[in-house]
Amino acid sequence: MDMKQLAEDVIAGNRRALARAITLVESGRDDHRAQAIELMDMIGKSGRQALRIGLSGTPGVGKSTFIESFGMMLIKEGLKVAVLAVDPSSSRSGGSILGDKTRMELLSREKNAFIRPSPAKSELGGVARRTREAVGLCEAAGYDLILIETVGVGQSETVVSEMSDLFLLLLAPAGGDELQGVKRGIMEMADLILVNKADGDLKSAAQRTCADYAGALRLIRKRPQDPKDFPKAMTVSAIEDRGLREAWEEMNTLTDWRRVHGFFDKRRSEQAEYWFGQDIRHGLLSQLEKEPLKSMIAELAHQVAQGEITPGHAAADVLKALQQG
Amino acid sequence: MDMKQLAEDVIAGNRRALARAITLVESGRDDHRAQAIELMDMIGKSGRQALRIGLSGTPGVGKSTFIESFGMMLIKEGLKVAVLAVDPSSSRSGGSILGDKTRMELLSREKNAFIRPSPAKSELGGVARRTREAVGLCEAAGYDLILIETVGVGQSETVVSEMSDLFLLLLAPAGGDELQGVKRGIMEMADLILVNKADGDLKSAAQRTCADYAGALRLIRKRPQDPKDFPKAMTVSAIEDRGLREAWEEMNTLTDWRRVHGFFDKRRSEQAEYWFGQDIRHGLLSQLEKEPLKSMIAELAHQVAQGEITPGHAAADVLKALQQG
Repeated sequence: MDMKQLAEDVIAGNRRALARAITLVESGRDDHRAQAIELMDMIGKSGRQALRIGLSGTPGVGKSTFIESFGMMLIKEGLKVAVLAVDPSSSRSGGSILGDKTRMELLSREKNAFIRPSPAKSELGGVARRTREAVGLCEAAGYDLILIETVGVGQSETVVSEMSDLFLLLLAPAGGDELQGVKRGIMEMADLILVNKADGDLKSAAQRTCADYAGALRLIRKRPQDPKDFPKAMTVSAIEDRGLREAWEEMNTLTDWRRVHGFFDKRRSEQAEYWFGQDIRHGLLSQLEKEPLKSMIAELAHQVAQGEITPGHAAADVLKALQQG
Repeated sequence: MDMKQLAEDVIAGNRRALARAITLVESGRDDHRAQAIELMDMIGKSGRQALRIGLSGTPGVGKSTFIESFGMMLIKEGLKVAVLAVDPSSSRSGGSILGDKTRMELLSREKNAFIRPSPAKSELGGVARRTREAVGLCEAAGYDLILIETVGVGQSETVVSEMSDLFLLLLAPAGGDELQGVKRGIMEMADLILVNKADGDLKSAAQRTCADYAGALRLIRKRPQDPKDFPKAMTVSAIEDRGLREAWEEMNTLTDWRRVHGFFDKRRSEQAEYWFGQDIRHGLLSQLEKEPLKSMIAELAHQVAQGEITPGHAAADVLKALQQG
């Protein structure tokens, strides 16, 4: 594959080229990795910058409906929208449940929308690394807004927040003890908490839940990257298209403030450093999956389990073999 | 240092030699690591096996008092007791708070007790690796029972349970919503939940809390390594020396059952494999802390933050440098 041509096609907004480029960065093969690095080098020169929005919410809060309504609203404003997913369950469950086009019927038919399901089964670190590069590709392809969705379990939120400029937490209305259900760590990542389903019978429950979270957010330590009144909790109704515009305005207020005060660029720099570290770690550990080391480790693990060699001694043998190439 | 002599002295029960050996396995120096591996090879030949008991509990539940009373009871039965600690906070807080001798005044004066504070500040993985080898040293030195204490925050419990035959969770009596405070993952690790402070005014609260946890334990998926009725919740009073004997009997019942059914040895084999994997990972990642790589990484991190090079490209450069040694 000609990387220069692929990069040009991606930057020209060719959807098939974008899809092919993402497949390339998702690949686990060594030769593909080398090509992906070359591609990302060239892509970086586009100079384009999208707004990257992380979105988390447990199944049932209406994430797909929200993305569909929110995405359609943005497209009507003339923006180009990409939707990516980090699915923490993909390594264990049968398949990728997120970013499924069939869940966002209207959006998936728009020429200014690009929806990509979560990468195939792999450990979270691998999925994350690939998605981060996919974000860069969508950005270079001219998308104005990139939504990166995940599911509320903890580790995947950290990963998504490390590739987002803004982090949204989508919640459903609930009883009084629901506050306990959201991990404190996830709440602390959120820039905006959106309580969805503020419609019909659930409207007043949504408002109560929103007030509860607004109260909880006030107890969270003030972050330097936030203007007054942020992080914030609001109600929305994705199904009735309500509150989405207000939420979008809040996102813009927050982003503008961070750009003016230097926090936007600072965060991107920190994120790049974070992924640099993650890529090194991932690259180092992936050596253990390759032959002949893989067989050596399996053999030694057997001896360790039998008590024939200490874990420390066996590990030192592996490390020595690694150093000798 | 002569490792053969040191091993012999440790096996002979020399306390100073044991302390010196633990200091050696705790060291981060490369030459010390090589010596520690040699030492652990020789130590393994003692053929001795202690009962390794992990103990977790948040500050305030009376962990020190429990260890003191429980340890003294065992010593009166003619057993030798070692107390080690894995302190997850030691890397951040001022010093090691656990395993402090001054907290266990009676026990620390017994010649058949050996108390070792948590290793000096370091990341949890490092502390864990060292403590696991310290457990092996205490075992070889003829201690019958090794208590490994930690504090209830999650990750350190995993680490301690990976070096223990039994895992105890110590709790204090509390109100009805306290059940939420203990992470489900920690509860699932526990073989025995001990509700301490079942004395004076707190006695009935302790019994209520114990009943709550007994109920919660019944909802946990049955594990193959447990006989009927385990995991179990009981009340104890460390300060009044009540329930400790009963708890000890339960520990023995459980251990005997696991030995007879092969789960005891199986678990030790699995743990040895686990630590083998951890040691490899730790050894691999520690390469990044050494020169000249450390400086190279710092320089590249700066360029990554400035956007002069992509994270993936910079990481590939580091990995190439590593391979070229």
